[in-house]
Amino acid sequence: MEFIIVLVEPKYGGNIGAVARAMKNFGLTKLRIVGPKIDEEAYKRAMHAKDVLENAKIVNTFEDAIKGLDYVAGTSGIVNLNEKKHIRNPLTLKEFAEKIYAIDGKIGLVFGREDLGLFNHELEKCDIVVTIPCDENYPVMNLSHAAAVFFYALGAKKLIEKPRESSGFEKEKLHEHFSSLLDEINYPKHKKAGTKTMFRRIIGRAMLSKWEFHTLMGVFSRAIKKREKT
Amino acid sequence: MEFIIVLVEPKYGGNIGAVARAMKNFGLTKLRIVGPKIDEEAYKRAMHAKDVLENAKIVNTFEDAIKGLDYVAGTSGIVNLNEKKHIRNPLTLKEFAEKIYAIDGKIGLVFGREDLGLFNHELEKCDIVVTIPCDENYPVMNLSHAAAVFFYALGAKKLIEKPRESSGFEKEKLHEHFSSLLDEINYPKHKKAGTKTMFRRIIGRAMLSKWEFHTLMGVFSRAIKKREKT
Repeated sequence: MEFIIVLVEPKYGGNIGAVARAMKNFGLTKLRIVGPKIDEEAYKRAMHAKDVLENAKIVNTFEDAIKGLDYVAGTSGIVNLNEKKHIRNPLTLKEFAEKIYAIDGKIGLVFGREDLGLFNHELEKCDIVVTIPCDENYPVMNLSHAAAVFFYALGAKKLIEKPRESSGFEKEKLHEHFSSLLDEINYPKHKKAGTKTMFRRIIGRAMLSKWEFHTLMGVFSRAIKKREKT
Repeated sequence: MEFIIVLVEPKYGGNIGAVARAMKNFGLTKLRIVGPKIDEEAYKRAMHAKDVLENAKIVNTFEDAIKGLDYVAGTSGIVNLNEKKHIRNPLTLKEFAEKIYAIDGKIGLVFGREDLGLFNHELEKCDIVVTIPCDENYPVMNLSHAAAVFFYALGAKKLIEKPRESSGFEKEKLHEHFSSLLDEINYPKHKKAGTKTMFRRIIGRAMLSKWEFHTLMGVFSRAIKKREKT
C-alpha cells in the first residue's frame, strides 16, 4: 500500500512547502500537484523536505492527477449535514484511518484549494470523502495543518492487514455496470447522476475485495442481460 | 477538564498565529506565551482566530506560564532512546490521548522553541513528556503542525461524529430486496447463500445512511418490478 498526496491548485507556495515537510515527517514521498509551478517560497518552507518537491509531479488537470490510482480519497473541510447531498457525506478521518489499511494499491489523498476546496465535479470522482471533525465556530483548517493531521492519523496505524481492495480499473467496470442497470430499469433520468454518485460512495466506504467486486458485477450483469433477453 | 496551550519563546509570529488558528479549529481558546509580543504576522496568520491572540496571556518566564495548572504536558520532537535520560522518555501522543481524559482540571500543553524545543530545566517541571512518532529521516515537525496534530488527537474524542447508520429493520428490508433480486434473475442456487452473505458484509462495512438505504431499495425494487411485468 502506498499513499500519493495530491494538491489541487494550491494558491500559496508556502503551503506546498509546508505540506512537503509534513509528508517527510511521516515518511511520505509521492506528491502530485495540479496547477502551479513550485516557487521559491515552497522550497523555503519545505526545510529539509526539498527532495519531496524536486520529485513532485506537476500536472494540468485533476484527472491527470488521479490517473493510475486504485482508490481516491478526497478531503473536505465542510461537513454537509444534509445527508441527501451525498457527495459530501463523508467519513471522519478516524473512521477512514480504521478502514484504509485493508486496502492494497495506490491510495490518493486529495487536498483542495485553500479557499474553495474541491469542486463538486472533482469530489464526484473520489471514491470517498474524508473530513476532520472541527469546531463549528471555525471549521476551516489551514491546508498544511489538515495535511499534517491526516498524515499523523494514517501513519499512526502501522499494522498491516490483508489486502482487500480491487484495482481502480475493476471498480470503474462495476460503476459502468451499475449505470447500465439503471438504464435498463428506466430509472428516472433526473435522479440518475445522484444515485450513481451515492453508489460510488457506498462502494468506496465498503472497500470491496476483488472477489466481492466480481460477485457484485456478476449480479448486475445478470440483471442487465435478463432484461435484454425479455 | 480544560486545555491551556503554552508556547515557550516562539521565534516567528507566523507560527504563533498558525497555532491560534489550529486552536480555534478544535475549540480551544486559552493561550499563554512566554516571551515575545504578538506581532502583525501573527494576527495575519491567525485568520479568523484573532480573538485567541487578543485573549492570550503574555508572560516572562516558563514558571509564570504553568502557574495554576493542574497537570503539565511538555511536548518534544526528540525521542531519546536512552531510558536513563528519563526526562525525555516520553509517551506517544496516542498513549497520552488515551489517558488524559481521566484527568480533571487545567491541563497545560507546552510547546517549545522552533529550533531548541524545551530546555531540560523546563522539561523537569512537566508532569509528562509527549511526542509525536515521526519518520526517523526527518522527525522535526513545524511547530504549528505539531500543535494541530495534538489538538486533533486530543479533541477528536469530543467533537461528535454524526449518526449515520440506518436501523436494523431497514437493513433487513434491503437484504430481502437483494434476495428477491437474485431470485428474479435466476441467480445460481448454490451461489445464493454466499452472495447474500457477501452483500451483507459489504453493506455492513459501508455504514449506509437512511437515505442511501432508501435509494438503494428503490433501485432494487424497480429492477424486481420491471422483471415481474415482463
